[in-house]
Amino acid sequence: MKQGRVIIISGPSGVGKGTVVKRIMAADPELCFSVSATTRAIRPGEVDGVSYYFISRERFEEMIQKGEFLEHASYAGNYYGTPEPAVNAALAQGKSVVLEIEVQGALQVMRRRPDAVSIFIAPPSFEELHRRLAGRGDTDPESMARRLREAKGECELAKEYNYTVINDSLEEAVQKVQAILTAERCRSRYTYIPQKEE
Amino acid sequence: MKQGRVIIISGPSGVGKGTVVKRIMAADPELCFSVSATTRAIRPGEVDGVSYYFISRERFEEMIQKGEFLEHASYAGNYYGTPEPAVNAALAQGKSVVLEIEVQGALQVMRRRPDAVSIFIAPPSFEELHRRLAGRGDTDPESMARRLREAKGECELAKEYNYTVINDSLEEAVQKVQAILTAERCRSRYTYIPQKEE
Repeated sequence: MKQGRVIIISGPSGVGKGTVVKRIMAADPELCFSVSATTRAIRPGEVDGVSYYFISRERFEEMIQKGEFLEHASYAGNYYGTPEPAVNAALAQGKSVVLEIEVQGALQVMRRRPDAVSIFIAPPSFEELHRRLAGRGDTDPESMARRLREAKGECELAKEYNYTVINDSLEEAVQKVQAILTAERCRSRYTYIPQKEE
Repeated sequence: MKQGRVIIISGPSGVGKGTVVKRIMAADPELCFSVSATTRAIRPGEVDGVSYYFISRERFEEMIQKGEFLEHASYAGNYYGTPEPAVNAALAQGKSVVLEIEVQGALQVMRRRPDAVSIFIAPPSFEELHRRLAGRGDTDPESMARRLREAKGECELAKEYNYTVINDSLEEAVQKVQAILTAERCRSRYTYIPQKEE
């Protein structure tokens, strides 16, 4: 029986990991996206169960207590997390589940699921990351300095990941992530070998 | 400084690993082929140092004593082996060295170089392997039965390899091996990450 894998894709803010993830998901029907849970209010245009599972703070804390999150964090006064049961359900159907998550969440998942495939998307340089963040309209010098400082700290953790893909050209980065997924499907422990009985 | 890797490509006789190796070598200038040493006599058309290093039995045994082989075996009364110094010289130049070797030799290299990338090329089925062996003109029933028996034993060792690629379609097998080589180049411990100083 084919078993899917957890695929962690992470990296600093502004590195372009969202674009890489959209591209690999569009090309590969065996991948599915994990829907996160959050306690923040739903925004216009968002759909419960698609954008996020929107749940109460009490429910979220109950799920933390029960150990039902693959990873969770709080940000700007709200909780965000990846519910593990939905991930397990997809894996059992042979789908691989892509988690596009921040570095701290990625480290939590790696500890909890050592069989996960972890990919760090790195900027070609911090100057280029600066340019990309500025291109997103974030021009406040203080916020920029904080993001770059965070990115430098995050890049030091790249060694914790199985793979590091430098997002210099988007095309090449997408091809490399796809090659990693193909290679991981060829891992001997996940591969069917003709048996003696044949 | 970029460091090459040892790439082991192995699998049963008749599975088509030679063709896969030729295709990936032709497409990738960062790969080089390891030249084996042998004590058998040189044949017409063969070139010393290209086809093999043709050396004396005394020299071969001296090299075994000195631990200079990555792997070695004897077959039909002659020695065959992969000299390690030549492999190390290529690695130091940033080349990756492809070893197309039999399963017993592959296991020796894996033990000696745990950082080697090992790929087992498997037949889609033993019936298909039988057809391929027959297509090579080997129609002696006894020799065929022996080769298939050996292949079955070898396929049981596939789990010892990092990767298993089933050679059903040659194109797909080549693409998978290339994806594995791309993925292995993205391993975090071999990847350059922008440093804080930048």
